[in-house]
Amino acid sequence: MSDDALVIFTPSGKRGRVAKGTSVLAAARKLGVDLDSVCGGRGICSKCQVAPGVGEFPKHGLSVAPDALSPINAVEERYDRIRGLKPGRRLGCQACIQSDVVIDVPPESQVHRQVIRKSATERAMEMDPATRAVFVEVPEPRMDEPSGDFQRLARVLEDDWGIEGAEAAPALLRTLQPVLRKGGWQATVAVHDARDGRPPQVLAVWPGLREAPLYGLAIDLGSTTIAGHLVSLTDGAVLASSGLMNPQIRFGEDLMSRVSYAMMNPGGAAEMTAAVQAALADLARALAEEAGVEPEAIVEATVVCNPVMHHLLLGIDPVELGQAPFALATSEALALAATEIGLTSIAPAARVYILPLIAGHVGADAAAVALSEAPETREDLSLIVDVGTNAEIILGNNQRVLACSSPTGPAFEGAQISSGQRAAPGAIERIEIDPVTKEPRFRIIGNDHWSDTPEFGTPEITGICGSGIIEAVAEMRMAGIVDASGLIGSAEQVGSPRMTATGRTHEYVIHDASPSGPRITVTQGDIRAIQLAKSALYAGARLLMDEMGVERVDRVVLAGAFGAHISPKHAMVLGMIPDVPLDQVSSAGNAAGTGARMALCSIKARRHIERQVKRITKIETAIEPRFQEHFVAANALPHATDPFPELSKVVTLPEVSFNTGGDGGAGGGRRRRRG
Amino acid sequence: MSDDALVIFTPSGKRGRVAKGTSVLAAARKLGVDLDSVCGGRGICSKCQVAPGVGEFPKHGLSVAPDALSPINAVEERYDRIRGLKPGRRLGCQACIQSDVVIDVPPESQVHRQVIRKSATERAMEMDPATRAVFVEVPEPRMDEPSGDFQRLARVLEDDWGIEGAEAAPALLRTLQPVLRKGGWQATVAVHDARDGRPPQVLAVWPGLREAPLYGLAIDLGSTTIAGHLVSLTDGAVLASSGLMNPQIRFGEDLMSRVSYAMMNPGGAAEMTAAVQAALADLARALAEEAGVEPEAIVEATVVCNPVMHHLLLGIDPVELGQAPFALATSEALALAATEIGLTSIAPAARVYILPLIAGHVGADAAAVALSEAPETREDLSLIVDVGTNAEIILGNNQRVLACSSPTGPAFEGAQISSGQRAAPGAIERIEIDPVTKEPRFRIIGNDHWSDTPEFGTPEITGICGSGIIEAVAEMRMAGIVDASGLIGSAEQVGSPRMTATGRTHEYVIHDASPSGPRITVTQGDIRAIQLAKSALYAGARLLMDEMGVERVDRVVLAGAFGAHISPKHAMVLGMIPDVPLDQVSSAGNAAGTGARMALCSIKARRHIERQVKRITKIETAIEPRFQEHFVAANALPHATDPFPELSKVVTLPEVSFNTGGDGGAGGGRRRRRG
Repeated sequence: MSDDALVIFTPSGKRGRVAKGTSVLAAARKLGVDLDSVCGGRGICSKCQVAPGVGEFPKHGLSVAPDALSPINAVEERYDRIRGLKPGRRLGCQACIQSDVVIDVPPESQVHRQVIRKSATERAMEMDPATRAVFVEVPEPRMDEPSGDFQRLARVLEDDWGIEGAEAAPALLRTLQPVLRKGGWQATVAVHDARDGRPPQVLAVWPGLREAPLYGLAIDLGSTTIAGHLVSLTDGAVLASSGLMNPQIRFGEDLMSRVSYAMMNPGGAAEMTAAVQAALADLARALAEEAGVEPEAIVEATVVCNPVMHHLLLGIDPVELGQAPFALATSEALALAATEIGLTSIAPAARVYILPLIAGHVGADAAAVALSEAPETREDLSLIVDVGTNAEIILGNNQRVLACSSPTGPAFEGAQISSGQRAAPGAIERIEIDPVTKEPRFRIIGNDHWSDTPEFGTPEITGICGSGIIEAVAEMRMAGIVDASGLIGSAEQVGSPRMTATGRTHEYVIHDASPSGPRITVTQGDIRAIQLAKSALYAGARLLMDEMGVERVDRVVLAGAFGAHISPKHAMVLGMIPDVPLDQVSSAGNAAGTGARMALCSIKARRHIERQVKRITKIETAIEPRFQEHFVAANALPHATDPFPELSKVVTLPEVSFNTGGDGGAGGGRRRRRG
Repeated sequence: MSDDALVIFTPSGKRGRVAKGTSVLAAARKLGVDLDSVCGGRGICSKCQVAPGVGEFPKHGLSVAPDALSPINAVEERYDRIRGLKPGRRLGCQACIQSDVVIDVPPESQVHRQVIRKSATERAMEMDPATRAVFVEVPEPRMDEPSGDFQRLARVLEDDWGIEGAEAAPALLRTLQPVLRKGGWQATVAVHDARDGRPPQVLAVWPGLREAPLYGLAIDLGSTTIAGHLVSLTDGAVLASSGLMNPQIRFGEDLMSRVSYAMMNPGGAAEMTAAVQAALADLARALAEEAGVEPEAIVEATVVCNPVMHHLLLGIDPVELGQAPFALATSEALALAATEIGLTSIAPAARVYILPLIAGHVGADAAAVALSEAPETREDLSLIVDVGTNAEIILGNNQRVLACSSPTGPAFEGAQISSGQRAAPGAIERIEIDPVTKEPRFRIIGNDHWSDTPEFGTPEITGICGSGIIEAVAEMRMAGIVDASGLIGSAEQVGSPRMTATGRTHEYVIHDASPSGPRITVTQGDIRAIQLAKSALYAGARLLMDEMGVERVDRVVLAGAFGAHISPKHAMVLGMIPDVPLDQVSSAGNAAGTGARMALCSIKARRHIERQVKRITKIETAIEPRFQEHFVAANALPHATDPFPELSKVVTLPEVSFNTGGDGGAGGGRRRRRG
């Protein structure tokens, strides 16, 4: 009879012979099988649960005896009695291999598992986190061997867990001694190893065995809003999401006005840095509270942002980003102490990873979108547009990926629009205009009913959000209220009492509760602002298509929190994006945030995007003469009729053109006009 | 004719063949010869000066032709004209090898040179600094290759200097862009590579070529005083030295009272941390100002201190150090950002190295003394005593090294002494008492003359410093004013009007300018304080001698700023240290400071002391019963007469004993008394 036994692990298929009596956990480690364990085989953490097979396994040519594993022992019985063990499950650290056996490692017992998360995008989140929790029993201090508590801990990490040369920041050392004593020299420590050439770091420590997950923050730091997700580092689950306004708005609504603020005010950059760092700390605090997790268990963060926000976050004066050649101070990914970006409200020794920047105007947010959407993995040609105050545009396939950014301004976010507001309850987000009667109906955020139904009731209507204004302008165009040049017709021209003259231009009244309530209109200035924004977006996309040498793309992905709410049909009516079949337009939700979350959950994702960013061809819109050409050419509103009538009511109207003889309104002077 | 030539470098003796036409600098690099260069061979920094030999070199079997090197070229001529080149010197980057040649690299052209410094100890300082300055020409940013300024700099460091994977902290990135532009894309950068597994770090950047040295701070953080040296990282020269009181004194004079303060006051440890960190920043500022160097050129610091100060500096509550087993939070050397210990007044990205701790009561200051004095390199047995508020004691030879610390208290520093004061102008530092007349004469700090000479004048006399009180007590003993138990005799017993009764004890008046000036006396309480301190010191030394199994040592080294001023004879009269021949007692000056300076100047020194500390046998005095025994036994003042009469005036007096029937004064109750 042989002294060793064959063990086959599924689903990995890894196999090998081990000495009889070897525990399943030890066998898994020996064969490089991904089997979790926090307590290191002490039978207390239950992370190493396995499902042994019994009977015939023709695929493996194996017949497994019922006693292939040692009988359930006292540790397992106790665990089952107190905590409950699923039928057929064993603790890998207790069950010993007695003869040839097939052992299944269920997904929840794998560290590097792929977790499918139900979300807007149903994204598979691959788990390969940099920080993991391990349980340690630290030898007590002895006067005849006066090593530091941390050195004895580090030795255990090396001996028990194979973690070599672990270090600790002073912030961790400050908490270490009382925690070790409180836990009776048993502790759970969060060990960070980003496999980036730096020594492993102990980030946090708890007395005794801590079974709750470790957490991380995925932060999407936008010019206007800062969004954060609190994520479990065990399975990538989002426990809480929250957003707040970027407090830098008071220094300038768009990026270039903030750069100007820094240039013109000594200490201005530092002031903006302090503001945004404080906001991040607030956001982290709010997320921890919302999810009910202790802030000390948040041990990592990832940040994505545009280059100006990136530099301001790090305290780097962004002045160079305001002028050609838009030189970045640093472009590569950064791994820092979280306190270096003001994240003082989480674990004191927490780490932060900031994704790489692509170019002077194409940020880590675009890198995160590229990571999330991965156009380089597809044969078809994807145009990915992340719409915000700045639009990040990526065009690519498995041959080549291009990227640029385009200064759309904040109109798409409801800013600089007369009745505009950010997306909040009471804001008009959907609108339809009857092409015959010119009468509108709409829906507001926080109300599931259209305004022309009795169920709508009499809610407060506060303004128009970004997606609402796009629909409004597109519907006005399709209803013949606006001509191809963007000019709003008069009451006479349009044939509707909803048209009101304001000086030499006209506006369209969507809702009028005056004098007691708001009067919500679309003005000529609003149309011009949307035209400027959509021309910038379209011109950026066209520039990349020129560079790629294509006239059309296979699919369009709208990313960004706002992109999730844009009606693709209306976007194409406006000419925001190139025409593609409507079923080839999809929303990626907050792709930048998803990319941040992927980088948070996986070191592999970090390494992938670091490599990929170097491969992306960067196009600088600001100095490309063709960008101006495309911008001017894209000013018109191309579609007078619904380009997708099969999806909507079919109404064909004659093309209209309003010639008032004067200037049509704000911004019109710079644009090509119909004669 | 061969295409290559033999080149022999002296003093290294390195030799090899290089292609003719190779520059001397390139040949040195190829052969691994230590030849400095900041500008990287551009002929502007002059650091690579060499002295080529001409003629016969029988030792090498070589005859060097006069034209073995290429003729002096325009770059060298210009340099010589403007800056002056010593006769026979060439610029290694310009002179090319044309035939077999012997080239001497003068010490000032070596990076890793040994520099002999004139100082109290004439120590040879081996230069192997972690941070060096290199000159770079950084490619300008291009829009079609939008890498960060730092990434382009890092690439130049790799290509031109072989420095791979350099990183930069945000603090450096904040200054990078304006500096690169100011220097027209030429810059001098300070690159730190401690060869400790961490990536190289850029610590500072200057526009153009910077020829001034980089600087470092060697800080000896004592319980009572903080001493700092500003050191050139080019040659180890001390440009300025300064000290200030440790502001933590207001929380407790000795370490244990500070530990108590931390235990009894919530936030007390943090308060003490803030105080000492602010003091370090002040000290650095003062040193930079004194030496007239820009604070940004101070790129490194090393710190030595006892374990309590170590933990308080890092913000670690020292509570565990107040009770057995005196567990350290961390014991190994630390490499941190200087800002982590509050050093905010030097280069923003500066680094700090904190030497390892030896044990719970034996600190990095003792490690620094061990580094400086290196008993492990000697055959004879050295007893090294670093006298301060805590005495660090090291006993060892090339077989074995032992260490302990002993709580002497602040008496040796003039504290807790009735007329005591710190060493400052006006303080009595030397004293002699005539054994017949019992009249004293003394010298004060800041005055080169004895008080009984006309040149002494009428200076203000303010008190007695630490070395003064030791001499006073020893002289009183030898003059028969004090008996072996430490009791001061009365005027009658001693036969001197300088004896004054104060209650049931007596005091000896050294100087009396009352009522208009100070009255400086040695009281019975002062004698007791000195007895306690010296007993603790002696007991520690004896404990190590017991452990080593020896009854005598070969030599005694007195270290510490105070040790430098102690008269060895008087120390032995008091029984502070074991008896050894007087010529075997030496002062090592501020050995802890010297050790800090060695670690500052040399990575090799850091690695050496890290290894050595692990080899040292640690003895914990606080729990060793024999320590108490030795302490009690050491209370007496052993020498009634000058033990080294050949070095002094020979007067032999009968042994005296004063029996007053009562308690002799403070502390006396705990001690063994003569019946």
